[in-house]
Amino acid sequence: MNKNTFAPTPPMGWSSYDYYDTTVNEVQVKANADYMKKHLKEYGWEYVVVDIQWYAYGAGTMRDRYQYIPFSKLEMDEYSRLLPCRERFPSSAGGRGFKPLADYIHGLGLKFGIHIMRGIPRIASHNHGKIPGTFVTADRIANPFSICGWNSDMYGVDAKAEGAQEYYDSLFLLYAEWGVDYVKCDDICNTNLYVNNRYSGEKEIEMLYKAIQKCGRPIVLSLSPGPALIDKAWHYEKYANMWRITDDFWDSWSLLLNMFERCELWQKHVLPGCYPDCDMLPPGWIGKGFGQERMTGFTREEQITMMTLWCIFRSPLMLGAELTKLDEWTLSLLTNKRVFALMGSSHQAVQIARDEKHAVWFSKDSESGNCYVALFNFQEAEAEVNTVFEELDLNTRMEKKNMPEKIRHGIIKNEVHLEELWTGEGAVSKERKITADIDAHGAKLYHITIK
Amino acid sequence: MNKNTFAPTPPMGWSSYDYYDTTVNEVQVKANADYMKKHLKEYGWEYVVVDIQWYAYGAGTMRDRYQYIPFSKLEMDEYSRLLPCRERFPSSAGGRGFKPLADYIHGLGLKFGIHIMRGIPRIASHNHGKIPGTFVTADRIANPFSICGWNSDMYGVDAKAEGAQEYYDSLFLLYAEWGVDYVKCDDICNTNLYVNNRYSGEKEIEMLYKAIQKCGRPIVLSLSPGPALIDKAWHYEKYANMWRITDDFWDSWSLLLNMFERCELWQKHVLPGCYPDCDMLPPGWIGKGFGQERMTGFTREEQITMMTLWCIFRSPLMLGAELTKLDEWTLSLLTNKRVFALMGSSHQAVQIARDEKHAVWFSKDSESGNCYVALFNFQEAEAEVNTVFEELDLNTRMEKKNMPEKIRHGIIKNEVHLEELWTGEGAVSKERKITADIDAHGAKLYHITIK
Amino acid sequence: MNKNTFAPTPPMGWSSYDYYDTTVNEVQVKANADYMKKHLKEYGWEYVVVDIQWYAYGAGTMRDRYQYIPFSKLEMDEYSRLLPCRERFPSSAGGRGFKPLADYIHGLGLKFGIHIMRGIPRIASHNHGKIPGTFVTADRIANPFSICGWNSDMYGVDAKAEGAQEYYDSLFLLYAEWGVDYVKCDDICNTNLYVNNRYSGEKEIEMLYKAIQKCGRPIVLSLSPGPALIDKAWHYEKYANMWRITDDFWDSWSLLLNMFERCELWQKHVLPGCYPDCDMLPPGWIGKGFGQERMTGFTREEQITMMTLWCIFRSPLMLGAELTKLDEWTLSLLTNKRVFALMGSSHQAVQIARDEKHAVWFSKDSESGNCYVALFNFQEAEAEVNTVFEELDLNTRMEKKNMPEKIRHGIIKNEVHLEELWTGEGAVSKERKITADIDAHGAKLYHITIK
Amino acid sequence: MNKNTFAPTPPMGWSSYDYYDTTVNEVQVKANADYMKKHLKEYGWEYVVVDIQWYAYGAGTMRDRYQYIPFSKLEMDEYSRLLPCRERFPSSAGGRGFKPLADYIHGLGLKFGIHIMRGIPRIASHNHGKIPGTFVTADRIANPFSICGWNSDMYGVDAKAEGAQEYYDSLFLLYAEWGVDYVKCDDICNTNLYVNNRYSGEKEIEMLYKAIQKCGRPIVLSLSPGPALIDKAWHYEKYANMWRITDDFWDSWSLLLNMFERCELWQKHVLPGCYPDCDMLPPGWIGKGFGQERMTGFTREEQITMMTLWCIFRSPLMLGAELTKLDEWTLSLLTNKRVFALMGSSHQAVQIARDEKHAVWFSKDSESGNCYVALFNFQEAEAEVNTVFEELDLNTRMEKKNMPEKIRHGIIKNEVHLEELWTGEGAVSKERKITADIDAHGAKLYHITIK
Repeated sequence: MNKNTFAPTPPMGWSSYDYYDTTVNEVQVKANADYMKKHLKEYGWEYVVVDIQWYAYGAGTMRDRYQYIPFSKLEMDEYSRLLPCRERFPSSAGGRGFKPLADYIHGLGLKFGIHIMRGIPRIASHNHGKIPGTFVTADRIANPFSICGWNSDMYGVDAKAEGAQEYYDSLFLLYAEWGVDYVKCDDICNTNLYVNNRYSGEKEIEMLYKAIQKCGRPIVLSLSPGPALIDKAWHYEKYANMWRITDDFWDSWSLLLNMFERCELWQKHVLPGCYPDCDMLPPGWIGKGFGQERMTGFTREEQITMMTLWCIFRSPLMLGAELTKLDEWTLSLLTNKRVFALMGSSHQAVQIARDEKHAVWFSKDSESGNCYVALFNFQEAEAEVNTVFEELDLNTRMEKKNMPEKIRHGIIKNEVHLEELWTGEGAVSKERKITADIDAHGAKLYHITIK
Repeated sequence: MNKNTFAPTPPMGWSSYDYYDTTVNEVQVKANADYMKKHLKEYGWEYVVVDIQWYAYGAGTMRDRYQYIPFSKLEMDEYSRLLPCRERFPSSAGGRGFKPLADYIHGLGLKFGIHIMRGIPRIASHNHGKIPGTFVTADRIANPFSICGWNSDMYGVDAKAEGAQEYYDSLFLLYAEWGVDYVKCDDICNTNLYVNNRYSGEKEIEMLYKAIQKCGRPIVLSLSPGPALIDKAWHYEKYANMWRITDDFWDSWSLLLNMFERCELWQKHVLPGCYPDCDMLPPGWIGKGFGQERMTGFTREEQITMMTLWCIFRSPLMLGAELTKLDEWTLSLLTNKRVFALMGSSHQAVQIARDEKHAVWFSKDSESGNCYVALFNFQEAEAEVNTVFEELDLNTRMEKKNMPEKIRHGIIKNEVHLEELWTGEGAVSKERKITADIDAHGAKLYHITIK
Repeated sequence: MNKNTFAPTPPMGWSSYDYYDTTVNEVQVKANADYMKKHLKEYGWEYVVVDIQWYAYGAGTMRDRYQYIPFSKLEMDEYSRLLPCRERFPSSAGGRGFKPLADYIHGLGLKFGIHIMRGIPRIASHNHGKIPGTFVTADRIANPFSICGWNSDMYGVDAKAEGAQEYYDSLFLLYAEWGVDYVKCDDICNTNLYVNNRYSGEKEIEMLYKAIQKCGRPIVLSLSPGPALIDKAWHYEKYANMWRITDDFWDSWSLLLNMFERCELWQKHVLPGCYPDCDMLPPGWIGKGFGQERMTGFTREEQITMMTLWCIFRSPLMLGAELTKLDEWTLSLLTNKRVFALMGSSHQAVQIARDEKHAVWFSKDSESGNCYVALFNFQEAEAEVNTVFEELDLNTRMEKKNMPEKIRHGIIKNEVHLEELWTGEGAVSKERKITADIDAHGAKLYHITIK
Repeated sequence: MNKNTFAPTPPMGWSSYDYYDTTVNEVQVKANADYMKKHLKEYGWEYVVVDIQWYAYGAGTMRDRYQYIPFSKLEMDEYSRLLPCRERFPSSAGGRGFKPLADYIHGLGLKFGIHIMRGIPRIASHNHGKIPGTFVTADRIANPFSICGWNSDMYGVDAKAEGAQEYYDSLFLLYAEWGVDYVKCDDICNTNLYVNNRYSGEKEIEMLYKAIQKCGRPIVLSLSPGPALIDKAWHYEKYANMWRITDDFWDSWSLLLNMFERCELWQKHVLPGCYPDCDMLPPGWIGKGFGQERMTGFTREEQITMMTLWCIFRSPLMLGAELTKLDEWTLSLLTNKRVFALMGSSHQAVQIARDEKHAVWFSKDSESGNCYVALFNFQEAEAEVNTVFEELDLNTRMEKKNMPEKIRHGIIKNEVHLEELWTGEGAVSKERKITADIDAHGAKLYHITIK
């Protein structure tokens, strides 16, 4: 299987983390899936992902002291594999795992995803749990020095140990049986986080890849947490489908502003089946599982900036909001087909300019020849943002393969026609320049054509 | 001007550094150019580059204490621009600079290049020298804290200072007048080297780019020294044609072995007009200017490994050897058209495997569909090196666009035909595997076809 | 000469930097010296120091762009040695240098100090200036890669070069002729600042030491800037009298709070003739030369905290304020003999406790047996600060050598008598605890006795 | 209790690590103790220390794969406290722990020590083991993110958790009951090793200190592993008796040479009850438990260098050799009373010089006025090593308090008398210089007197 065919365009969906943290249950997942089918599916949204610690009991009960309770009870089978917590996912009883929930979601025409932590449960290692299809036990493949820095459920698996690949294989066979379409593996992407074990982290990515190849199901592989390492770009591209280029993204302007720096860094690495990931989108209602339920802290302008950047950059789009509470304006932001067209597989984008006041991006669809320009205003007040034709190199960028030679050189004389995709407003450039007055922290996204 | 058109394939040529260090003179440059025209030009070699400190007097005279003599006399015009040392380049007298030498080289059908250090001469700054076309003096654009770590000729230029861009413009106007086709700018690529001034280094790259655009001559821009910063790949790609991915490369196996790591890192960044640069090639006679003239320390096998890696990776090829002393075997290494075909603009290569014992690379010409595999043996003795079809993913990689569907999937049953490009020997793969016995530190480069 | 005898107690004086920056002149220095003689001398203040760039012309004239003007004119003798700027120090005319000014200050019964930058002037190096008593020129001892990160006047001197020690010797012979008692050498203490030249910085400290030994005058050697490196404590202690343990200290609470961390770090390193230096004191009027003349930003409570810490820690005390403008309250702070007693050579202090809310220090005079406790309140409001006898280990610490055995163990039953040294108020401890209500950011300094 | 009184001079003894690694048993410990009593005790040797993993089963059985077997069985009481492995320490049966062995050693007039790892057993944490005298369980005080980098037995204890101090208190109450005189706590000294938990490591040192104070027994506290952090010198000095200034020291010249650098760094920090620790001494037979039993790799000259440095620097002396196998020459090295006199509490040493060829140290007994000079030859062949009176500053250093003034200044005219303490040979200095021909890697240690 060529893993790049698993996700020919950036995955779009919903994940339970931003709203539910570690507490989500079956009823809530279904409610969000139902909503997605009804309101979002036609626009490309399709993944429903159960995020972190679905195997843990007591999740969320000691919120004042811990996000993840150390040494708490985990649901696990006799083969050292984690299973859904039966209190929160009753349909998993009787060893059915996530199959019933996956079936439900597939029944809606959607896809089902889960979050996992890299490695093997610590408790299985200390208890010398079995590894399917091998004669070794968990303590022989667990690396007691390879731990996650913020969640104490697992030990890393030592790729050199006999039985290591078999353990990962057994996990993905189980996930394939359940019908999982997407796995978000955590504690594995930014391998700088575990100082002395960078190598081991990379090997675990390769074990994940091989386990997916062997399980026979085209499971999209998403790696967290960020920031991913730019010097390992080639490795992520070889073995995974998406990788987080930031630490957790939330509804704060400083994080959004910072994302421009990260997109600058990763702009050349957006390829079919390979997506640098700007992390989940936090519009609408979020934060309940963290004990701080709130409407997003972003202004509308900032949300437009966020959506424009994620789409022109072609990041995966994973909603963090509780879908059943979406208001009309937010929904409109998530259902703009003209904007989502930029996410198409033949689009390629490039940053034209970035400084402390503004940024400019350009995108072209190599098949249709459609061109787009996004202007961003980073300032605290409305400001004019502009970009000149020379900077955009429009002559080179807008030319088409079969254009007559004399037109190819010098086509763009003085103006192009502009259509803003969030508002639908049209305009014409002047003096070889694209100019817009943009609200504080806002953006404009133009489709540009030569008339 | 689109700078990527200045070098549609990786530049190939000769540079004076490895043999002459700081001491090269006009007669020697011409002798190497003559040789190139006669023996190498038809194979693609075309650049003749005068390397470091052509403006310095006494170069090489205190070799026991210094490579570059601090505070020595530099030839300079009244506008703070360095000129060729008249003792070594007599034709430059009368303010003609490098024009006569460039004319000579152009007359041979070759191209002319020079090396420069980033910045403005320190002595000009201390003497408040003029800047052409401005009312400011050198002290106003020089940054006294931005120095090179190993050569004391220059201060960096402060991009924010009035007159800064004008100074670089004036340099490239002069170089354009001379007829320079290629500029290797030093102390600018690995901006980590000047700890507190990374930003300023990047801005000087941008000033170079703009100065070239303004001068109207398509001068290829090469950046040194390495290692270039992978997180600035997008920046090099936007503003330059080639950038050094290593510190100076010499004839030592450890450096050659290390290059595989660097090529792994940069493999996705070889694009038209954008070349990660493995540095000069040291076969033949080198080291005279350093007081240690010697035949290359590489074995023949190592030289084949080097040429194979540089070519399949598509690094620029710059010879460091004294050309007039090339022996027959070395010359044969530099005149293999079948191998140089891999450097074509439609080729793209990928590393298939690398560990402490071996490496495998694959390259495909997207236009002709030609496929190549290189096998490298890192061990200290002859060893069998092999790669299996699955690892190569031959089914995916060798398919052609217009191939019938039933053939596209599963074309590669059990064997491919192989032709080794250095020896011309043919072979057939067995058991879905390409296998070769390779000498210590050696390589095999195969053209592979389906029969 | 044993350099530790040059300063048996921490030096106290005034330096021109905080008020005048680079602009101070002779009249101003004399005015401050006159004031010191009249109002401060009897309390131990004795050094008058001309701070940075007394040799530069145009100092302060381009304040909007530079603190130190790069490439500006410097007054220099034919031997590459800097001399006072004649415009600002007219008495230096005729080659008399600072001798007339030093004579004046000595006439007041005070001591005279100057600031220097490590190294040799860049301009002397580029012009191949002479070195006294040698046949080499400045370019042969200057290290063109050893520069200061914030002032461009000098190059470091290469300790291995012939003539290097001779240059430093010639400087201190000149300073000894002038009558200099104190040299504050800059760009030399925190040798981490010049990344690749740490070794060279250490060697320059040793050259300074040797030059002082040779010049025959007991010149106190003060090293800047900080933070000094704790792993080089033994080296500073061997070769210098004081070394800055912070970057520049100014009138901000965050810097003052941070000083507690630094004093914690260096507490064991205060020894006779060896003083970790908390930097200049900024009470009163400061900042004029920086274009921002102002009354200190510290509250009175913060100033008491500062003076208490500096004195109990036994930092050198160098006033930065314009003395002629001192108000009565500030003067009272600088003339408290009971407090300055803590600076005596037989005192040794130790930090008892420090957290985000408070700190406690203890000091004992090993000769008189006098004990002191300082309590500091770091909070933003008045708060009770206390320390218990056990924490202070009073039994051990207050015991005297000739005390009868039965008293030595268990002397401190329930209470000690306290006298606060800033207010003169008395008190008695209760329940084996010393307690005080202290204003926000304030301190109490107690003399404690057993009655 | 004043912890500095627990060890008024640097502890001297034997520890099982260098010979037995993790495998030592009761019979072996007793045999070494017997030998110490008979041959070494009168020279000051007194501690007998059972080193790492005395609580582990199977220690040493999988030597080819592990030094410490992850997830192996540990002997533990119901209160989460480790006990001696009953297989190796049969006298510990019936809950008697190390008491019988300690009694035996005390019966020889010697002192008993044990090694512990910082923290609480991981297995106790996962099983929610009890903590004595509290209502909390092990999982509530264990920090699942605070692990040792090379031994997987323990989790760090979170100082802020309720029950944390109580756990350490319970450990030391047990050790006090057993009769432990010395605890070598591991994974706690070089707190840089656990990148994100430096603070927590420091807090555990403080908990150890408090637990010792509470247990009422003067247990010497030794901290490992090194290198200790020089910026935490004050903290070690406040809470512990000795701390390792290197990583493990073994019988290699490069490690011995490196120790001079470390002693230079820590020279000012040797104080009563506070000892920077150069680690165990590996003369004689070592390495059996590591599967590589061998006679020390040091030459005799190197052993003299080692002993001279450890003694003049006043490091603790802990023998690693199997005592029962000591040969006569080695024994003579360990029983030189004149040399051990340098370890006395009134001695203070200082490094006079160090470069790549040699080092010189000076030591003075402030009570007797005795002075010593050690000369070290770092070269690969015999060489003359010397030091001049000026460098030694003999005039200052050898003066005595009650010496007549005229003698104090200038006592040392031209010569001092020398007695070499390893050979007993006498000599006289010449030309104000102490000179010796020293074998490769060897040393001379002189007692110097004025006649």
